Amino acid sequence: MEYFFLTSMVHYSKNESLILLYAEMIVDIFKEGMTQNNSARNEAWKPQGKMQTIQSKSELRKAIKSVKSKGKTIGFVPTMGFLHQGHLSLIRRARAENDIVVVSVFVNPAQFGPNDDLDTYPRDAQRDSDLMAAETVDFAFFPTADALYPKGYITYVEVQGPMTQVLCGRSRPTHFRGVTTIVAKLFNLVSPDRAYFGQKDAQQATVIRKMVRDLDFDLQVVVCPTVREADGIAMSSRNTYLTPGQRTDAPVLRRALNDATKMIVKGERNPVVIRQNIEKQIDGVEGAVIDYVSVVNGHSMEEVKTLNGEVLIAVAVKFGATRLLDNIRVEV
Amino acid sequence: MEYFFLTSMVHYSKNESLILLYAEMIVDIFKEGMTQNNSARNEAWKPQGKMQTIQSKSELRKAIKSVKSKGKTIGFVPTMGFLHQGHLSLIRRARAENDIVVVSVFVNPAQFGPNDDLDTYPRDAQRDSDLMAAETVDFAFFPTADALYPKGYITYVEVQGPMTQVLCGRSRPTHFRGVTTIVAKLFNLVSPDRAYFGQKDAQQATVIRKMVRDLDFDLQVVVCPTVREADGIAMSSRNTYLTPGQRTDAPVLRRALNDATKMIVKGERNPVVIRQNIEKQIDGVEGAVIDYVSVVNGHSMEEVKTLNGEVLIAVAVKFGATRLLDNIRVEV
Repeated sequence: MEYFFLTSMVHYSKNESLILLYAEMIVDIFKEGMTQNNSARNEAWKPQGKMQTIQSKSELRKAIKSVKSKGKTIGFVPTMGFLHQGHLSLIRRARAENDIVVVSVFVNPAQFGPNDDLDTYPRDAQRDSDLMAAETVDFAFFPTADALYPKGYITYVEVQGPMTQVLCGRSRPTHFRGVTTIVAKLFNLVSPDRAYFGQKDAQQATVIRKMVRDLDFDLQVVVCPTVREADGIAMSSRNTYLTPGQRTDAPVLRRALNDATKMIVKGERNPVVIRQNIEKQIDGVEGAVIDYVSVVNGHSMEEVKTLNGEVLIAVAVKFGATRLLDNIRVEV
Repeated sequence: MEYFFLTSMVHYSKNESLILLYAEMIVDIFKEGMTQNNSARNEAWKPQGKMQTIQSKSELRKAIKSVKSKGKTIGFVPTMGFLHQGHLSLIRRARAENDIVVVSVFVNPAQFGPNDDLDTYPRDAQRDSDLMAAETVDFAFFPTADALYPKGYITYVEVQGPMTQVLCGRSRPTHFRGVTTIVAKLFNLVSPDRAYFGQKDAQQATVIRKMVRDLDFDLQVVVCPTVREADGIAMSSRNTYLTPGQRTDAPVLRRALNDATKMIVKGERNPVVIRQNIEKQIDGVEGAVIDYVSVVNGHSMEEVKTLNGEVLIAVAVKFGATRLLDNIRVEV
């Protein structure tokens, strides 16, 4: 059975024993490893011509105009580069659903705070380029910071209120303003029909969805399932920061979240109990420092008093200087 | 000679005696009255088919998609309705430069402060509709506040810094955030190739230009000359608030600004001297209360210490509860 089908069944089903069944099948898929799963999909893709690498905004606009004038649809995957299987899953979904695929690679300074890892964020343009070409991306956009934030830049797009102030917004107060600003700019440059984001950054996806709806962007936000390593940790460019010891400890996030799912399936509806159970497991790992463990409404990101409707359970944990995220969405 | 030609010569010429000459010719045109001038232009326009009145966002999107798919260009005039000759001059310019003309009529609550005139702002949809049809507008968009700001709306576009904090931004601190937010939304709904704004709201035009550049909107902002009544006061929907006595006093704004132009042409470069002269004239009118008289850089809106480059001289004056704006731009 298809992974996407399974995750949506887990997501949308109201029948708890079915949720558990599907969830277990997903776990089985993880055990088989993502690689096999991916190569099976690979066979269905046809190359769409040579990838064009674009650096300037004017060149991108010209390319987009030409494509649009032919009535072709555009799928867009904005990334910060150092691509991994998570990004590739977004690109493949975009490839399957659109005539033209545009991927941007830009480490966006506006979403990094003064104490964040902007300078050390991993970069490898050549490797990214090769990976995109292999996925038959049509346009790879590598803008410069000077082009996107020229001298005197002063305009920001902001989703206000708890949605951007809780979870990651608490420790990174200007982060989401940076995200919505760059994404709005890229939407204006690329004019996509669909834009693809990963469920790993659940709050980001929710905030972008809200921005798109509020500002009347005429496009569909597609949120794709988190892709994981064989031991369950969510793929992230920041995983490369981890020491071997930290890397061994990191799967505790996933284990704690899986246990939370089981508790919910068994009937637990008290967010405090669920949160404390997650915290206990993570605190049990030496060197893991909790930034947050939150049980929130899946749309508003506000803390819930009892589990009801669509709920997001999200965790951020620091291993040394490296901050890792993970989350699950449940429909209760 | 053409009015547009004259104003641009006044605007761009470096020769001071020529500036004065052209300025005097503009004054002559005012004396002849705008009506004659307008009807002469009217003859050149051909009807472009029946105007379509649109209320819903989805209907507008459908209409825009259909137009775009045929490769037609779109000129857009966002208004708050109660149209006057100033609006019509924007619509005519849009008509001349584009295949399709879209005009929106929406009194945008987000740009009104708690003590502003949102509730009393003049409205007359039928009259607006008739005027637009006569100008062969293609799509008249009359959205509702609920459609543009549904329950839970939380996203704002903000141009930060002095540009939105000085002049009108000082007495109306959230005004420009409201303007940039609604204009960004309308740009996303209409996808115009060109958008038209009046020079009367000089700061608004500058802020929107900045937003368009910073957020990479792919469109041209066209700023059109202020259209005036025969006695020189800038056309504004808010002029209807004035009592007959206030209406008689209101041309002092224009007289004071004209005097400032003459002083500059004669060599005055000290903004303090210019400002004090304007203030003296306005203070001489009983019942006129100055909100601001400012001499600022035409791009950044920051106060200048000496007149140099593109300079905006802008005034806001209250007559009772009615706040009137006027300004001149000079290239020194």
